[in-house]
Parts: sequence; structure tokens; C-alpha cells
Amino acid sequence: MTEYQVPRGTRDLLPETMAKYALVERKLREAARLFGFREVRTPTFEATELFTARSGDSIIEEMYVFSDKGDRSMALRPEITASVVRMYLNEMTKSPKPIKVSYLGSCFRYEKPQTGRFREFFQFGAEILGAPALESDAEMIALASDALSRLGIADLVIRIGQIGIMRQMLQSTRVPREGWPAILHSIDKKEFGQMEAAFEDYGDGGSSDKFSALAELKGGREVLAEAREISGEMEALTYLSTLFDRLEKMGVKGLTVDVGVVRGLDYYTGMVFEVDSPSLGAEKQVCGGGAYALAEVFGGEPIQSTGFAMGIDRLVLALERQGYAFDLSGVWAYVIPLGEKAVAPALGLAAEMRMAEISTDLEMMGRNLSKALAYADVCKARYAIILGERDLAAGNATIRDMKTGDQKPTKLTEIVKIFQALIQHEKQ
Amino acid sequence: MTEYQVPRGTRDLLPETMAKYALVERKLREAARLFGFREVRTPTFEATELFTARSGDSIIEEMYVFSDKGDRSMALRPEITASVVRMYLNEMTKSPKPIKVSYLGSCFRYEKPQTGRFREFFQFGAEILGAPALESDAEMIALASDALSRLGIADLVIRIGQIGIMRQMLQSTRVPREGWPAILHSIDKKEFGQMEAAFEDYGDGGSSDKFSALAELKGGREVLAEAREISGEMEALTYLSTLFDRLEKMGVKGLTVDVGVVRGLDYYTGMVFEVDSPSLGAEKQVCGGGAYALAEVFGGEPIQSTGFAMGIDRLVLALERQGYAFDLSGVWAYVIPLGEKAVAPALGLAAEMRMAEISTDLEMMGRNLSKALAYADVCKARYAIILGERDLAAGNATIRDMKTGDQKPTKLTEIVKIFQALIQHEKQ
Repeated sequence: MTEYQVPRGTRDLLPETMAKYALVERKLREAARLFGFREVRTPTFEATELFTARSGDSIIEEMYVFSDKGDRSMALRPEITASVVRMYLNEMTKSPKPIKVSYLGSCFRYEKPQTGRFREFFQFGAEILGAPALESDAEMIALASDALSRLGIADLVIRIGQIGIMRQMLQSTRVPREGWPAILHSIDKKEFGQMEAAFEDYGDGGSSDKFSALAELKGGREVLAEAREISGEMEALTYLSTLFDRLEKMGVKGLTVDVGVVRGLDYYTGMVFEVDSPSLGAEKQVCGGGAYALAEVFGGEPIQSTGFAMGIDRLVLALERQGYAFDLSGVWAYVIPLGEKAVAPALGLAAEMRMAEISTDLEMMGRNLSKALAYADVCKARYAIILGERDLAAGNATIRDMKTGDQKPTKLTEIVKIFQALIQHEKQ
Repeated sequence: MTEYQVPRGTRDLLPETMAKYALVERKLREAARLFGFREVRTPTFEATELFTARSGDSIIEEMYVFSDKGDRSMALRPEITASVVRMYLNEMTKSPKPIKVSYLGSCFRYEKPQTGRFREFFQFGAEILGAPALESDAEMIALASDALSRLGIADLVIRIGQIGIMRQMLQSTRVPREGWPAILHSIDKKEFGQMEAAFEDYGDGGSSDKFSALAELKGGREVLAEAREISGEMEALTYLSTLFDRLEKMGVKGLTVDVGVVRGLDYYTGMVFEVDSPSLGAEKQVCGGGAYALAEVFGGEPIQSTGFAMGIDRLVLALERQGYAFDLSGVWAYVIPLGEKAVAPALGLAAEMRMAEISTDLEMMGRNLSKALAYADVCKARYAIILGERDLAAGNATIRDMKTGDQKPTKLTEIVKIFQALIQHEKQ
């Protein structure tokens, strides 16, 4: 029909899909508000250096980059945390601490399109800036847990680690600091062969076993003791123990220690966590976050920060996989005028219904009754209101229940009242 | 503090501003839903040709354009109607008609930053595809009117014109079709000197007066008769009369005939309208739309279409100018533990409150009472809940009304119930 197509790797969200996204986004917003986070919005593109400062020039390959007319390099944001920290440094350093903010928005990555991974995708996230680590880390994990439970994601697994464990261990190897990112990356991906090769390159192949043993430690709090046996006493392990205490007092369920969670990004500094929804199979992670140091990367004063991000696409998919009963209902009432004389009363009735906050659509095509009802059905209208000329002459109309097909003649003047009662009844 | 700045012409929406944007966006969504429109979302960028096909190559100057790795030219969308029509042609031609959709999203224009005009701005809009013109035009104007009234925009002026009046008039001049856009553009901007010069260029200076007289006709329905005196009988004028009949039956207020509304864009084909909020002064337009033919521009089958778009920035500004009482309140409860022993009960209480859907924040900085209260105040918490160690030993806590300063000792176990009652009371 047209040569114009949606750009490769992106998609349109048609009404039924969009209804699911809107529901997920609304519930995530509600959860953040319930925890005292306040929403912010930052620009869709930023100076490219904002992202390279954090992740190195290699990230340029994975971003949409363009020059503006002042020949400044700009990038469509690959994530939103960097923007929040920039916003904080530009405009909020004087604001009372802590700063608790949340966001919702489009992010972009320039990679080969794959199933379930899009070049434009939607993220929800939250950050706490300026509160102590323990308090921030616990609050963020509690919010992630609450938001996902509130959404209806079942069987959440919250895997919590501490980047300091591996970092401190690395200090006692022969690997120089510039070799750490590659090793941490292979631990993150559980590519232990690659990790071993890296250790061997530095003439320290013997260290490899300890790291893979640590990286596979996963379970209840008893795991902290097992880690201690491998790594020795460590502040990071004591910290995790204190964090678990706090989270338990907050009633957070589904907690797991996972020493192998190190996250890909270099700017994490302490606690790191990921949340899985097992319903998703191999690509099960729905949330990731941790404590990070980004303000100083951007030339600002250091400030304690913890945040997380969730991908809306994965969340919608997880709910679909679980058979979640999305509410895809249409309007409460579909008004059908039959004949020219019925049009004016139909317009008046629709206006009156909408004024009373009752969602109402109107037959606009001049169709006959059966075709109009077929459309009302497709649009998932709950009721149809049929206005026939003869009925109208007696001040009447007919309400048809679109689920059962039951029809009831009604006084035109009472329709709004009847619907208010119907809606109250059905909402109970 | 940092060299990293928000990109020129864009801005961060900090929490207070974002709360206003979120309110406006939520209410616009509600209005669309109430009228039976269903939300859709299209990509933030599109193939550049989608926009040049409609507006010519000159629009490239005003867009953010970049090449993707397949060397296809992409543009950040300057508006969303073109994307909706593309989406329709790609995926919805077989859907039952009419198609009624709405959208909310970022748009971009690459122009010199000016007060109140940003390079990234936020639009709400709606479209009806596939219904007859009269029904579609009336429904769109009714939605625009309802949405703006529901928002609280006062003294709306809805100016309705018909592009066919000027087009038909132009047919009886010596101006060839390729000269029309420039003349229509000068009429749109009320630059009559420029218009006259254009007519003179085509050796038809005498026509100029009729056009400026028509373009200045504005008022109630009596204006249609005045227009007829200048232009002669015209289908477009009869159409406007019928449209006004229908809108009056729908109870739409604030209607004005404005023959001078021709809108800038070439793809409008029939009714065109603009809505003003006089509170905004010179830049008073908050909504613009009309009937358009875009599907055929994209190589598809023609389909009757009417739509409008509103700028969220202008709407927020209009409400601010009117002194609209935005709800900028914070959480219901700010929980303050005093002393180490109070921390566990505070965490438990906050979790319990949040579980009961009562928005609750938690003192995380270990501050003393007066500093914690000062923070609760800044965050506009409605109440503070103070947990002192001695009170807790007796199972008590103190609820402080942050507006009045009144404090009341309370049983810890009854706090959730008390808040549920307080909230119900204050919401009434």
C-alpha cells in the first residue's frame, strides 16, 4: 500500500498493545509515587560525551549519533541515569537531600534487531542521590520489588551482589587495573573460559578458579559465609549482611545473594542487583541497578547514588507469558442513531454521557443496526444505546448489553443515571 | 560544577514542573478515552521522506536529520500525524472503520530557541480515519473543546474555517496553482502586504482586496452570509453551516467562524480549526487541526481524515497564567525514626503504609527531629509520623499535621487505619 515503513528495529504500538504498555507505565508510576519518588523528564538526546565519559568511546558504535548545526555531537540516549545525574549537577545540587526521582521514557540502541530487543525501547527507572548507601540501596530494592509485585509479575527473584567483592579480590592478583573491566565483563556473562584466558595472559591462571567459584555462589544468606571462606573477611560481605537485615525489616521477599552479579557498567561502586521473572525463560532479567559514582565522572562533587532501570517491553512480555488478564475493554456506551431524526438526540445523549465521565462513542458511519453492533463489538463497547425514531417519539431508547445481548427499553432522560448505577455495580 | 549541559533549546523537567506536565497529559488522555479514542505510540524517528513527502524538502532545514548505518536518512519527528497515517497504511487498513486514535509524545524542531518554543516539545493529538467528513470534523472539534475545558483552560475561542473557500476563490484568479501555497501562507500569517505583492506578480493585483476582506471575516454564524457576499455561493460555506449545526447539538461552546484560518500545511483539504486561550497573549494558540489528505501522499488509497494536535508546553503555561491551583503535594506520611532502636519499627511501618496504598517516605539521613521535619516540609509531606524510642516502648508514635503543626500521640498498630480515615476525609 505504501513504500513508507516503520524504521528498522522500531515498531508502532497499536491500540491493544499500547493499552498494555500504558497499564504497566501507570502502575510503575504509582509505585514510585507511593515510595515518595518524584517524576522528572530529561531530553531524548544529549551531548554524546555524556555517554562516552561514562562508558568510553566504544559506546558510540551502539548509539544513534548525529551532529547538530553548531557541529556538536549529539546522541539519542541509550539510558537515562546519565541524564538524571547531569540534571542533578546542573540544577539540583542545592536541593535538600536525598533527591528521589523516577522517570519513564524512550531509549535507543543501535544494534542488530533481535526478537524482543528493539532499537527504540521504553524504560522506567528511579534514582536516590545524596542519602547513605545502606538506606538508599535498601529503598531502591524495596521499590523495585514492590513495583514489580504490584504489576503482577510472579515469582520474582532478586539477586543481590557487591561489586567490591570481585574488585578487592582482583587487587590480590597480578592483573593490573586496566585488565579488570574485561575480567568483570566475562564474570558478568559467566564466560569463565574467557576469564581464565585473561588471567593466563597476565601470568596468573591460578587465580581463575577462585573467581569462578565465587561467581557461582548463589542462594540464601548462608552464601555470605561460603564467600568468606574463599575471599576471606571483607567489608563488602559484611555490608551485604547488613543490607539483607534491613530489607527483611522492610518485608522484601524473594531475596537471593548472587556474588556473580557484577553488572556490565564500570560506574557501579557497591551493591549491584538484578531481578528476574522466570516466566521469561532465557532472557529473564526485568530490572537491573546498583550503587554508582557518576557525578565525579562528569566533573561534579561525588554524591552517593543508587538507581535501577526496568524495560517496559520485557515487563509487558512477562505479563503476557503469565496469562495476565489485561483490561482491554472499550467504551461503556456506543450510541447508535437509526435514521436522520435520531441523530440530534444521539449527539445530545453522547455529550451528556461524556460530561458525566462515562466513556461513550458514537456511530458515525450511518450504518444499519446489525453493522453498527458488529463495530461496537469489535471495539469492545460494554453496552450499546440504540435510538430508533419510533422509540424516540415516545422519549425512549434501548440499552443493549453487548456481552449477553439482553436489550432493555429505557426512558431517554434516565440513561445517564442508569449507567452510573451500572458502572458502580460492575466496578465492585 | 560540570561541563555537561542540557542540549541547547531543550530542558529538564524538574519534579514540580513535571508534576504539571503529568497532570495535563493524564487529563488529555482521559478526555480521549472518554470519547472512544484509543492511544497509540509510534517511533520517535522516521524515514526523512515521510516528512518531505508531505511538506517538501525545505522542512529538512527545520528537522534533526541523521543517517543510520544502512545510510538511510532518518529524522526526529516534527509532528506525529504523518506517523499515524503511515502506521494506518502499514498495519490498520483492514481494521474496522472509523479508526479513532490518540497519542502523546516528544516532537522536535531545529530552529533558533525562543521563549516558550523548545527544540524538543511535547504533543498530544488525535485522529479519526475513515468516517465521513462532517461526523469526523464535529467529533474532533468536540474532543478538543472537551479536553481543554476539562483541563481548566478558561475562555476558549474555537476558530473554524474551511480551506476550500480560499482555494475555490483562487481558481478564479490569474494565479497558477504553484503560486497558491505562498498566498495561503501569507493569509495564514495575516501578512496582507506580502499577499498583495504576490497577486501583483501574477498581474492580478485587483484580486487582493477580496482575499484580505475574506481573511478578516470572523464572528458568529452571520459571518457565513457576509462571506457569501464576497465569494458567492460556495459548498464550503454551506458545509460550515451544517458543521455548526452539528456542533451546537453536541453542546460545544465558544465557536467562531474565522475565514482567515487556512493553516500552514498544504495537506489540509477541508475544515481547519484553531483554538486560542486568550490568557496566553500574543502566542495564544493551544490547538490546531483540520481535515487532511495524507494517505494518498504516501501512496495509499485516499481515506477521509481529520485530526488535531496540542502543545503541552503552551497548555501548562496557559494554566500557570490563569493561576491554576496545581496539586503539588508530596507524600501522605513522612516517617521519622529517632534513634537506632526506632529504625526497625519505622521500616516496618513504612512498608505497611505503602502496602495499604498510602504514599509514604522515610527519613534516611539519621537527622534530628527538627531537620527531618524541615525536609518533610520542603517535600510537602502532609503528615509526619515521629517514632521516638520511649514512645515505641509503650507501642506509641506521634502523628504531626505538617500544615497546622498539631501533634497527636497514637497507637502504632492503629496508624494505617487512622491514615485511611484521614485520607478519605481530606479527599471529600
